[in-house]
Amino acid sequence: MLETAEVGNKLDKETYKKDAPEVRTALLSVQQRIATTDLAPVIVIAGAEGAGKSETVALLHEWMDARGLETNVLWEPNDEERERPEYWRFWRMLPARGKIGIFFGSWYTQPVVQYALGKIDGAEFERCMGRVRGFERMLAAEGFPVLKYYLHLSKKAERKQLKTLFADPATRWRVHENAKKFFKRYDDFRHAAEEQLRLTSMDFAPWTVVEAVDDEYRNMTVAKSLLRSLEVAADDAEARAKAGRPKISSASPRPKRRNVLRTLKMDRTLSGKQYDKRLVTAQADLGRLTRDLAAAGRSLLALFEGPDAAGKGGAIRRLTAAMSPYLYRVIGIAAPTDEERAHPYLWRFWRHLPRRGRVTIYDRSWYGRVLVERLEGFAKAEEWQRAYTEINDFEEQMAEGGIILMKFWIAITAEEQLQRFKERQHTPFKQYKITEEDWRNRKKWDGYEAAACDMIERTSTSAAPWTLVEGNNKRWARVKVAESVRDRLAAELAS
Amino acid sequence: MLETAEVGNKLDKETYKKDAPEVRTALLSVQQRIATTDLAPVIVIAGAEGAGKSETVALLHEWMDARGLETNVLWEPNDEERERPEYWRFWRMLPARGKIGIFFGSWYTQPVVQYALGKIDGAEFERCMGRVRGFERMLAAEGFPVLKYYLHLSKKAERKQLKTLFADPATRWRVHENAKKFFKRYDDFRHAAEEQLRLTSMDFAPWTVVEAVDDEYRNMTVAKSLLRSLEVAADDAEARAKAGRPKISSASPRPKRRNVLRTLKMDRTLSGKQYDKRLVTAQADLGRLTRDLAAAGRSLLALFEGPDAAGKGGAIRRLTAAMSPYLYRVIGIAAPTDEERAHPYLWRFWRHLPRRGRVTIYDRSWYGRVLVERLEGFAKAEEWQRAYTEINDFEEQMAEGGIILMKFWIAITAEEQLQRFKERQHTPFKQYKITEEDWRNRKKWDGYEAAACDMIERTSTSAAPWTLVEGNNKRWARVKVAESVRDRLAAELAS
Repeated sequence: MLETAEVGNKLDKETYKKDAPEVRTALLSVQQRIATTDLAPVIVIAGAEGAGKSETVALLHEWMDARGLETNVLWEPNDEERERPEYWRFWRMLPARGKIGIFFGSWYTQPVVQYALGKIDGAEFERCMGRVRGFERMLAAEGFPVLKYYLHLSKKAERKQLKTLFADPATRWRVHENAKKFFKRYDDFRHAAEEQLRLTSMDFAPWTVVEAVDDEYRNMTVAKSLLRSLEVAADDAEARAKAGRPKISSASPRPKRRNVLRTLKMDRTLSGKQYDKRLVTAQADLGRLTRDLAAAGRSLLALFEGPDAAGKGGAIRRLTAAMSPYLYRVIGIAAPTDEERAHPYLWRFWRHLPRRGRVTIYDRSWYGRVLVERLEGFAKAEEWQRAYTEINDFEEQMAEGGIILMKFWIAITAEEQLQRFKERQHTPFKQYKITEEDWRNRKKWDGYEAAACDMIERTSTSAAPWTLVEGNNKRWARVKVAESVRDRLAAELAS
Repeated sequence: MLETAEVGNKLDKETYKKDAPEVRTALLSVQQRIATTDLAPVIVIAGAEGAGKSETVALLHEWMDARGLETNVLWEPNDEERERPEYWRFWRMLPARGKIGIFFGSWYTQPVVQYALGKIDGAEFERCMGRVRGFERMLAAEGFPVLKYYLHLSKKAERKQLKTLFADPATRWRVHENAKKFFKRYDDFRHAAEEQLRLTSMDFAPWTVVEAVDDEYRNMTVAKSLLRSLEVAADDAEARAKAGRPKISSASPRPKRRNVLRTLKMDRTLSGKQYDKRLVTAQADLGRLTRDLAAAGRSLLALFEGPDAAGKGGAIRRLTAAMSPYLYRVIGIAAPTDEERAHPYLWRFWRHLPRRGRVTIYDRSWYGRVLVERLEGFAKAEEWQRAYTEINDFEEQMAEGGIILMKFWIAITAEEQLQRFKERQHTPFKQYKITEEDWRNRKKWDGYEAAACDMIERTSTSAAPWTLVEGNNKRWARVKVAESVRDRLAAELAS
């Protein structure tokens, strides 16, 4: 691919000067349009050392309104970033809708450098690029168009460019300390770049390769290409806004006659005596094990799903009672804030990922996307369908980042739920737990059951299996949850 | 003060068991009420090692809904925190309205420990407590009631308690490694605590001293006191909500005949040649100096205020053109997001404070509180009046944290503004800059002038003086800004 950008493209200074004001006005104007849409374009500037990445970013800042631009440079990860999965820092840097994010260095940087230097092999590099594809597919689908520019220099041109920059004290600082070292391996870097382009050129996130020998040509090519892409994106967004939100089918899925939830032995039970004994033992172990998390550089994330009144809160309290209150945080999922809505769906969950040594417990979770949001039509079919993949990827990244993830589905029967609703209405300090919505949801019991089965089937991965808990007997459920967490922690921390 | 909590208060287990359910129900219920108000109580748990701080926090978690509690423990600051002013981490941990924040360790911890160990003297300790008072006064005024509990043990009781905890392997981990060391200096810590209580017991943020020998007495005393305080706060908030927002006077202030803005020589001007020469020199220096910021462990924050069309954006672009685009960020102040509204006024500015080595430029700033919000009645008189103090304190903390703060007021005359408004309407890529609101604001010219004069008078401190810029001639203004930043950076980085 790259040889197409070694043909000596140039732009004379007069044409550049003549065209610049018009392109600039158009860029400002499309930026203004973007600000009123639900888009947040993500611009990746990659390429060879000395190819003018930094000048290109400076140009965009000069020609556009800097208040709407957020430029991110990938320095070494800081300690908050190091204690979380690799992509946490990228999620954290995503622009809010209406803004434009510029990435100078990105999710490509580490894999490409490591592959070029032979620190990872081709298979691992392909795996990394697979993750990139998933990430960019999600971004594009969520209204974050990904526009990628690769600034290229031939070997000869790069040698000359580095020499020129280094000779002048005014520009020497711009040559990264690694540039000379990397240049010695030009061919390896070129090969890695070719692979990067091959593996991640997608219709929804295309690479534009730009010959970067001539400053005017490079600047104008990037500016015009960006302008076109932004205009297309703005046109689409405006047309979508005009068309209004499509009517979403509210047909509930039907559960299969035999499904994983119906195979649960719902008559499991524990006596008060058994319960006390087993819970106390499990809690003592949990106290010790969660204190050991920090030393092991691990963290725990436990999430709870299940019908209303399944006993999620009670199970959670039996867990937290065993832990130091400053180690854990319980997050109840409410409506997203407007900052959360201004980002891709999973953003609000990424932002709360625990640091090493901590425990985060979700009372309901990202699975709302494929449960309530699917059932109630808050998410479009396209949205909740791709959520399975996005969630699996999210959870795989947690596992890689040292997070021990446990997912609990607490099951109860419809009859048991009715019983508990009635009880809640008659107990003063439980009344706040029961709302009109609970009664409404109950009417869709079958739909929720079917959606839950789909969810369990599609997101029970080896890295993050679901634990199904028979919940009709609260004692049984609480002990099963506490012991499951205990056993998993013990196994993980022993290994 | 503390001897009142050495009298042997106890509560028998029967009474405790009998009262507990009622207190628990009431706490849950008041927590539900808080969730619907604009309050976010801040609970500080302080006291001696072994006095049961951690048990008290655990009790609150057990008795209340953990989903509405955010418990913060002050570990060692991490690197993001170390690179910002001391209070950044406290601001960052503030609960959002409707939640309850529990601080286990707080803004008191470091000063008290350092004072007790003789690492800071009494004067410095008083200065620290002064800062605490300002912080808590702001919190209380913003709807963040501050409720502080000091759990006390006499020397004898603490010795016994530490021995007991340490003897049992199950509780040994709860004794902080410093506890024994600190106990040897019990008298110093007691003296520091007495001073802490004396200096920071305020009507709007009272300390409750609790004798902590007996677990049941300690738990019940904290729980009941907290319950009362939360109920009072909820009552007040509900009464306020019912009364509705008070009508705010929209009378504009009148400027004095002689004021600091009218003394500016508005006919200052630069020729094109002078401008080019001086700007290029200043920009070259700025490029170099901003690159040196990181090595010096400093950062730069420049903010711009002034009438519409004063040329803030143009002056900012001449600054940023000189800087590496990945060193700076330009923040344009728009309406706050709902997460921002859920926190005290200055929160949205604290959250963007630059890390070391970075440059943050505000196009409009926190001074909106005493300018547009004052003039348009968005802030109550009480709110914008106390903002002067809060802002001065904020800026003092920046200076202490190594942030070089520059504040620019770009002045233009009313005639010049009219000229520029007209020009903007006729230039395609400037049209987006002019709105109906600009014309409306213009009608209140005198009010804005008077408010600006009040602001300059009350917030020009030695740590953060205002730089007034004669802005009728854009060349003059841009060069003055660039050279001012250059000179300040040169002076700061030389010292």
